[in-house]
Amino acid sequence: MNEAIQSWVERIRGGDVRALSRAISTIEDQRPEAVALLKALFPHTGRARVIGMTGAPGAGKSTLVDHLAREYRSQGRTVGIVAVDPTSPYTGGAILGDRIRMQAHHADSGIYIRSMATRGFLGGLARATTDVATVLDASGKDIVMVETVGVGQDEIDIVRLADVTVVILVPGMGDDVQTIKAGIMEIADIFVINKSDREGADRVHREIRAMQSLAARKDAWTPPVIKTVASEGKGSVELAAAIAGYEKFLAQKDLLLKKKISNWRERLLEMLRESLLQRLLTERLSETELSHLAAEVAGHRRDPYSAVEEIVASFSSAELESKNQ
Amino acid sequence: MNEAIQSWVERIRGGDVRALSRAISTIEDQRPEAVALLKALFPHTGRARVIGMTGAPGAGKSTLVDHLAREYRSQGRTVGIVAVDPTSPYTGGAILGDRIRMQAHHADSGIYIRSMATRGFLGGLARATTDVATVLDASGKDIVMVETVGVGQDEIDIVRLADVTVVILVPGMGDDVQTIKAGIMEIADIFVINKSDREGADRVHREIRAMQSLAARKDAWTPPVIKTVASEGKGSVELAAAIAGYEKFLAQKDLLLKKKISNWRERLLEMLRESLLQRLLTERLSETELSHLAAEVAGHRRDPYSAVEEIVASFSSAELESKNQ
Repeated sequence: MNEAIQSWVERIRGGDVRALSRAISTIEDQRPEAVALLKALFPHTGRARVIGMTGAPGAGKSTLVDHLAREYRSQGRTVGIVAVDPTSPYTGGAILGDRIRMQAHHADSGIYIRSMATRGFLGGLARATTDVATVLDASGKDIVMVETVGVGQDEIDIVRLADVTVVILVPGMGDDVQTIKAGIMEIADIFVINKSDREGADRVHREIRAMQSLAARKDAWTPPVIKTVASEGKGSVELAAAIAGYEKFLAQKDLLLKKKISNWRERLLEMLRESLLQRLLTERLSETELSHLAAEVAGHRRDPYSAVEEIVASFSSAELESKNQ
Repeated sequence: MNEAIQSWVERIRGGDVRALSRAISTIEDQRPEAVALLKALFPHTGRARVIGMTGAPGAGKSTLVDHLAREYRSQGRTVGIVAVDPTSPYTGGAILGDRIRMQAHHADSGIYIRSMATRGFLGGLARATTDVATVLDASGKDIVMVETVGVGQDEIDIVRLADVTVVILVPGMGDDVQTIKAGIMEIADIFVINKSDREGADRVHREIRAMQSLAARKDAWTPPVIKTVASEGKGSVELAAAIAGYEKFLAQKDLLLKKKISNWRERLLEMLRESLLQRLLTERLSETELSHLAAEVAGHRRDPYSAVEEIVASFSSAELESKNQ
């Protein structure tokens, strides 16, 4: 292993915040040294509990995550937070937001918060986010929380790959939001009804129970429903307890490793997909060739489905072998 | 070409709704005959104008899309609609919703509406949606509208690949939604402020203008802002006119082909990514091997980054060639 990478890894493991931030930027910007760094960090991972938190816009995710982080800190556990933030670079909102959130924790060195921009990651956002969670794990954080807006499929895929997935709902957000809620019912290990002092909290609770009665989970776990008022810090103790309860269930039933294997299966597929494309673009299909092909397809001179088949066939060694037969 | 495919294509082009629906299901379910069908349909595409419509949950997208469709019908143009719907299969909401929406158009055969479920499409939703738009194009629809919830990156990627992208905002949806709005500013060719009879519509308008003043578009187009009240059918004539205005701009500046080339470049990359993975899984990496690798990684006996590199290297023929040197 490269010496620079080695010393970088040591600094990350030693709690050096600048080394950690630089590692995350390296992954976010997909810089060439990212893979070498991740390889070197991997042996030091696997200790953190990864908690995915998702909910509709306006559900109060950040506030809830911050209070939950505070609860874990009071238990003496260190916390890393990755927030997948759809803010445009126009506003610089993400970085500013991180600073404000960090300040709320009084510069506690046991907590680290980082936002990821969602733009420019066509297909690779889930990969980048899980890689960042890996870095936080290697840095020695006991708890890694991944926070996303739970509407897009990509964002749902991100939290789905956590050890524990928390879905945050709020009362009275209208029909469209109820529809979205239905789409993420299956990924929830724990439900939170935030802003539960508002009218309609009981109705949301009943709706969750009604949906749960329609389909039992394969693992026989019934996701508990926790009511919180994050703006007042209410319910975060109960939420931490519910998460601990689910962890205990996973441990008793020997399901945690099973869940990790299933998650890694998905991650490996995503990594293979991206890595295959990168290799193709490096070795077989130049930018000029790609642009030329796009122009031919846009001009209807070539059908894209056959073109893709041909390119992929010429890339795979299996095709070469079959030609030799 | 297969005779069955040939006759299927003829029926789609002849306006057979059952043949069309079956084609879309074939793509949605990723059935083996999907690619052969798409190849056969491709020569008959390229005539439709594809309009992407996106907005936050609760922005009234479906209602607006339906009214816009009605406006196009009154102009004598046929319309196909693909709605990317985050509804879970639990509820069967998507199919039911399509029927209700179709009924609102009094079984007009010049309009076709289809929802796509967003689940089970890890990374492939944009691909499936654009393929469905291709089928609707081949079926002879003059206008194809693609409607998504504009929060997730995946959903944004979908509408970004349209000829014309419409971003729908609403007044008074709080800070979180304003943040999301910022994330999709750049993809809008046209802004709609729906529910514009509500308080705060002027503020949203000013915010759009303020953001536009920060960054000019490369093509020098200034996206117009159209105010609508979709629930009362207000503003759809103006929206159709604004879309026509942008089309005229694209035609005058000779930009439409450029935009189509750039969109196809993205689509080809996505198709290559998926096709490479499928070939790898068919020819090199069995389900058993993948599961075994996932277990090794989850157990920390193997680092996933090196494993992926090795698999990809052994798959690419370039590697074989370099070994022979």
